[in-house]
Amino acid sequence: MYWFQKEFKLKPFKRGFHIITDTVLNEIPDIEKIDIGMLQVFIKHTSASLTINENADPTVRVDFESHMNKMVPEDAPYYIHTYEGSDDMPAHIKAALMGVSVQIPITNGRLNLGVWQGIYLCEHRNNASGRRLVVTAYGN
Amino acid sequence: MYWFQKEFKLKPFKRGFHIITDTVLNEIPDIEKIDIGMLQVFIKHTSASLTINENADPTVRVDFESHMNKMVPEDAPYYIHTYEGSDDMPAHIKAALMGVSVQIPITNGRLNLGVWQGIYLCEHRNNASGRRLVVTAYGN
Amino acid sequence: MYWFQKEFKLKPFKRGFHIITDTVLNEIPDIEKIDIGMLQVFIKHTSASLTINENADPTVRVDFESHMNKMVPEDAPYYIHTYEGSDDMPAHIKAALMGVSVQIPITNGRLNLGVWQGIYLCEHRNNASGRRLVVTAYGN
Repeated sequence: MYWFQKEFKLKPFKRGFHIITDTVLNEIPDIEKIDIGMLQVFIKHTSASLTINENADPTVRVDFESHMNKMVPEDAPYYIHTYEGSDDMPAHIKAALMGVSVQIPITNGRLNLGVWQGIYLCEHRNNASGRRLVVTAYGN
Repeated sequence: MYWFQKEFKLKPFKRGFHIITDTVLNEIPDIEKIDIGMLQVFIKHTSASLTINENADPTVRVDFESHMNKMVPEDAPYYIHTYEGSDDMPAHIKAALMGVSVQIPITNGRLNLGVWQGIYLCEHRNNASGRRLVVTAYGN
Repeated sequence: MYWFQKEFKLKPFKRGFHIITDTVLNEIPDIEKIDIGMLQVFIKHTSASLTINENADPTVRVDFESHMNKMVPEDAPYYIHTYEGSDDMPAHIKAALMGVSVQIPITNGRLNLGVWQGIYLCEHRNNASGRRLVVTAYGN
């Protein structure tokens, strides 16, 4: 049974959806020792999030941003928590909807993702600095 | 400490929400050996998803489909990624909102679900073929 | 390798978003023995959910409730599952969007949460009784 864990900081990303699969894998090369196991990626923030989706056509990520902005708009008349800027409260809600962790099975030393799947960093703020991730891999 | 993992393909389901708890359990009977542990079900796709919800009245699943279609509509004017059909981009967004994995505690050899909880396959495409799942169970 | 698991019932909460981080930690003090590991909190219900978000300003939780009520309204004309009350079907959908579990890395005997992160109980029903949680901690 192996347990590996690493905490690190991403470079700053602009608001939107970004693929970070390779960045994550580069930080935790020891997963190649695991035959059956699990990788978790956790983001230590409340206005950015993680999900898994299409890794090929970049317009998919543009459409994610457009739709999330429509579904969770800025300046809704019922927001009370407004003093951190128009992008702040929507960022909290979007982060909760997407989630702050992804869990991916490991099989034969590799992430067992579908061929079209990648890990997304979802940056919901306009001017965020680099986000902190905790990556934990465990298995046999 | 046990680790069990199995990858398999579901039969094709039509667009909508479907209970697959028994199908999953039939693929991984070894969880009965685990006193305390965890089951993960992971879907290797970007336009179908997994969640846990009400396992009794089928109209709940119909209402899920109706509401998700309203909340993430087809043919939104801001979609750019349209060349795979009207149902494709909404399917990606719905999949990210629902999530591509569920994690369920194992207690005394059984899934420790609430009495009303079941595992849903959420099929967001009109004409999908069978989806691939990876089921991983681990524990003591 | 340690495995700890406990099932317990929360006190009833009113409809809305509530921080339960300390309540959860009080139930599972053994995580202090774990250097690298994982904590899962799972809710055994289909109309309440769990997420992780901002632990400081209570107006954030008020805005969550306001927005979720707008995004998943009561009495939508397309709901069929209405016989359990106007708050029931939206509660199921909200619960699936937020999710029924959170997974948090453990580092040096403590939850490795960001400084602003807390565990939310999301109570989507008007008059719910106390909700059952299963807390599972495991690691080295």
